[in-house]
Amino acid sequence: MKFIKQRFAIKCCARGIASIFLLLLAVCGQAQAHQHQHKHNNKYLLETHDQVEQMRAAIMAKGRFADKFNQQKTYIDAKLMAPLNVPLPADAGGGYTHEVHKKNYADMLTAGRIFVLTQEPKYAQYVKRVLFAYADMYPSLPLHPKQKEQSPGKLFWQSLNEAVWLVYSIQAYDSIKGVLSDQEKMRIESNLFEPMVDYLSEQSPQTFNKIHNHGTWATAAVGMAGYVMDKPDWVEKSLYGLDKSGTGGFMRQLDELFSPQGYYNEGPYYQRYALMPFVLFAKAIEVNQPEREIFKHRDNILIKAINTTVQLSYNGLFFAINDAIKDKGIDTVELVHGVAIAYGITQETGLLSIVEKQNNILLTGYGLEVANALDANKKTAYPFASMSFGDGLKGDEGALLVFRQNQADDHQTLVFKATSQGLGHGHFDKLQWMFYNKGQEIVSDYGAARFLNIEAKYGGHYLPENNTYAKQTVAHNTLVVDQMSHFNGSTAKGNKYHPQVLFTQLDEHLNISSASMQNAYDDINFTRTQALVNTPEGKVFVLDILDVDALTNTKHVYDLPVHFNGQFIDSNVVLDSYTQQQRALGDNNGYQHLWLQSKGATTDDLVKVTWLKDRTFYTHTTVNSAAKTATNSSANTQDQSLLMTRIGANDPNFNLIANQALINRVSGANDHQFLSVLEVHGEYNPTQEFTLNSHSQLTSLANISDVIGLPNLNVFSVQFDGELEYLLVINKTDSQVTFDYKQKKHVITRKATLLRAN
Amino acid sequence: MKFIKQRFAIKCCARGIASIFLLLLAVCGQAQAHQHQHKHNNKYLLETHDQVEQMRAAIMAKGRFADKFNQQKTYIDAKLMAPLNVPLPADAGGGYTHEVHKKNYADMLTAGRIFVLTQEPKYAQYVKRVLFAYADMYPSLPLHPKQKEQSPGKLFWQSLNEAVWLVYSIQAYDSIKGVLSDQEKMRIESNLFEPMVDYLSEQSPQTFNKIHNHGTWATAAVGMAGYVMDKPDWVEKSLYGLDKSGTGGFMRQLDELFSPQGYYNEGPYYQRYALMPFVLFAKAIEVNQPEREIFKHRDNILIKAINTTVQLSYNGLFFAINDAIKDKGIDTVELVHGVAIAYGITQETGLLSIVEKQNNILLTGYGLEVANALDANKKTAYPFASMSFGDGLKGDEGALLVFRQNQADDHQTLVFKATSQGLGHGHFDKLQWMFYNKGQEIVSDYGAARFLNIEAKYGGHYLPENNTYAKQTVAHNTLVVDQMSHFNGSTAKGNKYHPQVLFTQLDEHLNISSASMQNAYDDINFTRTQALVNTPEGKVFVLDILDVDALTNTKHVYDLPVHFNGQFIDSNVVLDSYTQQQRALGDNNGYQHLWLQSKGATTDDLVKVTWLKDRTFYTHTTVNSAAKTATNSSANTQDQSLLMTRIGANDPNFNLIANQALINRVSGANDHQFLSVLEVHGEYNPTQEFTLNSHSQLTSLANISDVIGLPNLNVFSVQFDGELEYLLVINKTDSQVTFDYKQKKHVITRKATLLRAN
Repeated sequence: MKFIKQRFAIKCCARGIASIFLLLLAVCGQAQAHQHQHKHNNKYLLETHDQVEQMRAAIMAKGRFADKFNQQKTYIDAKLMAPLNVPLPADAGGGYTHEVHKKNYADMLTAGRIFVLTQEPKYAQYVKRVLFAYADMYPSLPLHPKQKEQSPGKLFWQSLNEAVWLVYSIQAYDSIKGVLSDQEKMRIESNLFEPMVDYLSEQSPQTFNKIHNHGTWATAAVGMAGYVMDKPDWVEKSLYGLDKSGTGGFMRQLDELFSPQGYYNEGPYYQRYALMPFVLFAKAIEVNQPEREIFKHRDNILIKAINTTVQLSYNGLFFAINDAIKDKGIDTVELVHGVAIAYGITQETGLLSIVEKQNNILLTGYGLEVANALDANKKTAYPFASMSFGDGLKGDEGALLVFRQNQADDHQTLVFKATSQGLGHGHFDKLQWMFYNKGQEIVSDYGAARFLNIEAKYGGHYLPENNTYAKQTVAHNTLVVDQMSHFNGSTAKGNKYHPQVLFTQLDEHLNISSASMQNAYDDINFTRTQALVNTPEGKVFVLDILDVDALTNTKHVYDLPVHFNGQFIDSNVVLDSYTQQQRALGDNNGYQHLWLQSKGATTDDLVKVTWLKDRTFYTHTTVNSAAKTATNSSANTQDQSLLMTRIGANDPNFNLIANQALINRVSGANDHQFLSVLEVHGEYNPTQEFTLNSHSQLTSLANISDVIGLPNLNVFSVQFDGELEYLLVINKTDSQVTFDYKQKKHVITRKATLLRAN
Repeated sequence: MKFIKQRFAIKCCARGIASIFLLLLAVCGQAQAHQHQHKHNNKYLLETHDQVEQMRAAIMAKGRFADKFNQQKTYIDAKLMAPLNVPLPADAGGGYTHEVHKKNYADMLTAGRIFVLTQEPKYAQYVKRVLFAYADMYPSLPLHPKQKEQSPGKLFWQSLNEAVWLVYSIQAYDSIKGVLSDQEKMRIESNLFEPMVDYLSEQSPQTFNKIHNHGTWATAAVGMAGYVMDKPDWVEKSLYGLDKSGTGGFMRQLDELFSPQGYYNEGPYYQRYALMPFVLFAKAIEVNQPEREIFKHRDNILIKAINTTVQLSYNGLFFAINDAIKDKGIDTVELVHGVAIAYGITQETGLLSIVEKQNNILLTGYGLEVANALDANKKTAYPFASMSFGDGLKGDEGALLVFRQNQADDHQTLVFKATSQGLGHGHFDKLQWMFYNKGQEIVSDYGAARFLNIEAKYGGHYLPENNTYAKQTVAHNTLVVDQMSHFNGSTAKGNKYHPQVLFTQLDEHLNISSASMQNAYDDINFTRTQALVNTPEGKVFVLDILDVDALTNTKHVYDLPVHFNGQFIDSNVVLDSYTQQQRALGDNNGYQHLWLQSKGATTDDLVKVTWLKDRTFYTHTTVNSAAKTATNSSANTQDQSLLMTRIGANDPNFNLIANQALINRVSGANDHQFLSVLEVHGEYNPTQEFTLNSHSQLTSLANISDVIGLPNLNVFSVQFDGELEYLLVINKTDSQVTFDYKQKKHVITRKATLLRAN
């Protein structure tokens, strides 16, 4: 009876519609506060008694779990004898004391785990000694001397790190609490954990109640401490906010921080980071209060979020959109926990191949489960797939489109970023794209300008160049109007508007989506259609149609950069090169960081640039609007040129990485269509000394909608080697349309269709 | 009797001392011409009857050989049905017809091998059809339309490719000859192979008799054809030159193209290429005339050459000295043959781990041997070692010094290039160095400016920038005087002079060598001492002492570039940056290709630059001579600055790769000592989010010879963290020397000694 009632309470929360959401939450929250009894007794925070027994048996047997146990035991045994090192907080992120305090929680956690498994007192002693040292120091600590602006910590420069410290250390404490005397427990709890919880919750209401990953870390830390120290009140506050109304807290974070598809609006790099407190706290809730059915909440949103984080990776690394550090990927500890926990709940064997790549078995109940499953060869391939990840609370504020050609590790992947801004870590990159092949970035996003934890680089913070370059529109593969960034570089404005996805179609040979963006510029709207094509004849290409819609008669300069990765091989443009000296391309909005290497125009119909990355050639081709004939009378007033750039200007501290880009620039334009193709072609084989198809095979690219003459159809022709001709047909209606082309009749039944024209 | 006489004949050749060398060779050559009977009957060119039987059995069993057979059979079965494609020669290297003719010989060879193994007529038919097509075309071919200057071919733009074609095709013919009618054989031999042999030998005497790898390809092709077609005269000419005097030909190539340590003077990239005809022809000689004991010639020189080629690699890729294409390594087909043949002769199981990395089992007798050995798990680690590879006929014309820390794949390796010029493919890089760690180049040589086989890049030739940049001294990590290259960029002059190695000592914690160079500049000699140090306390560093000895009173500008690979992190020099525009650093000798990014001077004692490559930090430190006090009175007139550069100026076609360098520049100097250290330190771990020791720990670096005050000792102090102090002591004498330093007594018994000073 109680159980049913409580489920209803949770459901009523989840279903609360916007207008009565706050009210309902308040009611639910209070109801739950009374209904839930804290059930933590003699059980560990993250595993059941049974699991603990199984783990203790597993370390005596053979397998991945025992291997990891032995490795970790060897590691921590060496630590046990070392003198304690609990220095007074002094350094910023990446600095000495910062790293020592991080190391301490990691070592305590390890020792705690080994104690759970072995019950050998020396491990508990070690954790106790370290916690005592912190308990002796903590009460007298002032705010950190290098405190970060918004929310300082005491052990660390920001309270975020303090919450992380608590998430780990409370687990270590949980492991050994059972063998401590009341006096010892009191020394640790009253001097360390209670004041820390108080500092992170009551004294930091803005962070604690924030619907943001910083808030999730704080609520998880406090909630987990609540379970371990038997403080139901802390748990309730963590779940429903300090006032327990549901306007803040973990449940609302679950409801609002992920889209229905499990997409976190700052992008995968932060999604991975945000995931840790979500999955750990949720696991603690599940173990301690299974009746809350936390993993079923909002249609299994946490499992979706874990899977989405994996899907948003290529060759093990996350898509580097927004403020992403590029070398982060699926082996981060957050996903090690997340994927193992998800497997424990779903038993999806595809997750096991991710676990295997992570190569990091955890000494937890859920760690044992994946270790056993891998030992039993249950692993199957992870089902990477072409998917649309809706952004926003309802999944309708734009989307991240991921197109994949197949399941191989080095398959082609196109990411079309039609998401919303993504808060403070978002970039001004509406409707940009990225492309991957053979395990490499080919058309890339710069990611964040930051050297995480490297003190010499601005203390490991985001560098000034993150704002002056990495966030700016020109640093991305999308439209720049008059050398201004989207929303004129205002995050506040960016957060107000999001793209509209017009359609998405994910088929075997054609993955395609179209989205439009308004308000990125005052008097310009733009619509982009991106298609990843893999024809039965083996041609692989991206078709990119960018329609610029000018709302006034003003003439503009449109730049369309392609940040490519590889060695420039060739162009059909005669480039006028700045050989003896070169200048920055502009003065601001990111342009000040680009050296203009060369510039040129062509009278050819197509503008081509070929580059080589590893052993594959890539050619980017754009229709040259300046070469157009009378069909578009305004075109003749336009000027189109190709600019080649490299990062490095106005970068006296070498904070930026010297990547290159090609920019197709159209000047004196009003409405305009950029029609482009990226071809994947050929092979350079230095081992066997041969080279195949190093030249672009694309011979013609055109918008032939006028030729077809049906107003409801947009038709694009892509021709290779002067022969093989494909048509991409986009039907603006929902009805069937028929047309003739080169003596062949075509019946169009879908939104987007790829045809052989010959 | 005959056997003994012949062995004597060979020995007398090998022992011939310089003064009577030519005479003896002439005598020996003629003697052999009469003594050797061509023994090729019913045996294959490269394997015995027994081996053929074993191979035929192996394809019916399980294992690597059978796997490869099945794979190759599947491949060639698909080819058998395809129409023949033997186009008229038209394109340069990398072009269509060039690649087709290469593909044809490879496919013929494969089909031939499958025929040997299966005896199924269809494979012989295929080879015959292709050879007929060539036989029909060849007699009427003029010189190739895109003929290369020096020595054009007919099928290919250069005769070198034609010789390669013959080396392969004659093997294919050898495989099927036994089932052809006399008429068929005549069609192929008289129309194709005989005229081709004639063209490559009698009509191309300069190439055929040349002591150079082009000569080796020609002699090997002709000699192998001689065995297959039973023409002892061709074999003799191949071995001893067209006039059979021994002044040209394969035997003299064996005697002169490798140093006694098996070093080929153009460097490993060309050594690998040159190796192919050596090992194949030698194998053919061994099979057909084992009494020549070709592999024992000159103290097993061919086996040494094969092993040296492997030793001259790091992480599978060759040291990129001279005109090297950087992505060439131990998996090239030349070494696949070489290593398998060497294993067949030596049974050294270390070679098997190279075979395993090559992952390319050959369908030959020696291929079967390594496949069987790998199947039987006989593999051991390849014994990579610190070694000195003497250059020149006697090994005394300089040396390539290779220092390795251990056997791991990602170990630290220092290459100190004190070799001679290396003929036309040599660079002006006397006494330069390179450094590798964790599988990566850290301090690098540019290698060749060339995109092999990529037509768009100057037809796949060496680019003009190979001369204007890659060969120039500034493109290397060595001394540049007054912005001029060594030997003023004259290869002819460079070939006249070579460095003198003064001493080399290869110990567990200290690998060190010293070499001096005269005549690279008219009035400057320089001596460099390079040490790779790995202390018991775990400090890893390179110590680099470059002494510049001015022969006149003229003041000079000395540049010492370090071409580093990684992201600049920090410097203690306040750099004056060219933020809005940047210029080329100079007008010629390679300087015209370097953008000067920034420049600065420091008053500190040390000039430091730190960079990050993958997850490790590197700091290069040089003593700031301008900061020196009164001890050296002339020092005050010197000016020392740090220049940061990036390649890219005067490169309108983007032919160069935009690598960076730091350059320590000392102006107004006469005699000078550059004293530098490269530290390997710290760890950047983005997965686990920690950073350790990102700052240089080197706190002091000094030449303290004056402090010690013993004229026979050079003493250098290297101090870390203000504590740990090491002394490198170099004893100029051969006697024991004793000295005191900081209350400790030190006894020096060796040439070079590394001490703890505290």
